[in-house]
Parts: sequence; C-alpha cells; structure tokens
Amino acid sequence: MTNNICKQITIITESALEHRLTDDIQRLGAHGYTITNARGKGHRGVRNADWSTSSNIRVEVVCGASVAIAITEHFKEHYFENYAMILFTSDVEVMRSEKF
Amino acid sequence: MTNNICKQITIITESALEHRLTDDIQRLGAHGYTITNARGKGHRGVRNADWSTSSNIRVEVVCGASVAIAITEHFKEHYFENYAMILFTSDVEVMRSEKF
Amino acid sequence: MTNNICKQITIITESALEHRLTDDIQRLGAHGYTITNARGKGHRGVRNADWSTSSNIRVEVVCGASVAIAITEHFKEHYFENYAMILFTSDVEVMRSEKF
Repeated sequence: MTNNICKQITIITESALEHRLTDDIQRLGAHGYTITNARGKGHRGVRNADWSTSSNIRVEVVCGASVAIAITEHFKEHYFENYAMILFTSDVEVMRSEKF
Repeated sequence: MTNNICKQITIITESALEHRLTDDIQRLGAHGYTITNARGKGHRGVRNADWSTSSNIRVEVVCGASVAIAITEHFKEHYFENYAMILFTSDVEVMRSEKF
Repeated sequence: MTNNICKQITIITESALEHRLTDDIQRLGAHGYTITNARGKGHRGVRNADWSTSSNIRVEVVCGASVAIAITEHFKEHYFENYAMILFTSDVEVMRSEKF
C-alpha cells in the first residue's frame, strides 16, 4: 500500500459513446473507470443531461503514464474528429495504487 | 492538435445560480463548461441534491489562465459574499486545446 | 480572501458507505464535502449507479494537508481491505479558503 503518482484522465463527451469508450479504456490497459452524467456547453452547443439521448458523460480514468498515453492517442485518432469530446489529464497521488 | 496547459476551475455552489454562472462563464471568455448535480455539506449546512431546489451543482470550466482569473475574480466579487460557493483551480493538460 | 494551496481528495466507493464516510470526514477536520452519484468498473467488477443499492459515489473533499493525511490514513486502515474504494489526491488552489 504505497502511494504512486498516476495520471487522471477526464473525458467529457456524448453519452452515446459510453460503451465504446469503456471498452477501449479497458482494452488499452486501465483497470477501472468512473462515469457521471453531466450537462454542459461546448464546441457543439448546449447539451442537457438527465438521461436524454443527447446527454453528456464525464469519464474519469486513473492509470499509469503509458496507459494514459495509449488512451489519449487512441481517442484523439478515433473520436476527436467526429464527436464532441474534451479530454484533459493531470497528475494525482493514488493510495492503494495496486488497484489501478 | 497540440497539448496545452490550461486551468481547470471547479465551482461547487447552489443550483439556483446555474444560469447566472453559465452566462458569466461564457461572457468572460470560456468556450465550454460541464455541470453535474451534487449534494454535500459545507459552510452553510447539509444540502441534498437530486434536483430539489436546494441542491448543489458542480461546475467545471477548462480555460486559459487569463480567462480563469477573470472568472475567479468575477465570482469572488459577485457571489462569495451572499451564496454558498467553493471555487478551486488546478492545472490540466488539455488535448485538442483549440476547443477551449 | 486569499488563495491557498489545499489538498483535493477524491474517493470513489460503494454508496452504502456514504454516511460512514461523511461522518469520518467531518470528525477528522474537513469543513465540507461534495458527493456525486457515479457508475463504473473497478477492482470488483462493473457497478451501475442510478440510485440502486449497488451504486457508487464520488466524494470530494478539499482541505488542508494535515486533515488530508488524517482522512487518507483513516480510510486506508478502515475501508481499503473490505470495500471497493479508490482514493487519490492532488493539489488545488482554493479561493476563499476560510471555508475549508
């Protein structure tokens, strides 16, 4: 149970992508993800969540640096062109990092 | 498609302020925002979300440093005195930063 | 109203723990917390939120460094062994820090 510096990736995007993204996230090596429903405004106009088909999701992944690069590059290549998506990363200190 | 260091502003406040805050955020130069419903306890006692009128919201904005200062100063001047509001910022590395 | 560097603790865990954790958080010295409902996949398999009894919560606490250590150590000792829980921390700059 040591602390480790990991990457936190936050992705805000269309909820219709949820299953594709979570499949990708796991296949690319992350051990978990957290999703919350969100609403907001971005590049492509106002979106209202509350489980409508046009809602947004906020996906969080905490993982090692190499997995973070793999996820980021994959999303950049496959989604950024055709979907409303924001992705940003930061460093976090993870307790019980063996879970990630 | 380069990465950029941006500011992430997180605001936790009364949901009744949502429209005023999002108007401010856009007018002060941010290109987007994300809102999730929240509950919690802070300065002014326990709040329960779930869409009641006393619920809280968690507003996230990712923007450049100068816009972050403008938003922070505006909120400090106009809301901190009279509303339950917490605001904090951190640095994030944004992919596809041209969206912000 | 000065800015202060504080610790942001993010805990993602089983919603059944909500009341125990928020009691702990306050007793250990934090002045507030924010909770959002979440779903996700982690160490112990897929969890779907939407207010079912097996849902997850995302708990955020912003506090000083010593309180952050107290919370982290307490959760490590009392919950990590027996519950699905992820905990990570990062530094944030807090406006109006007297609230925390």
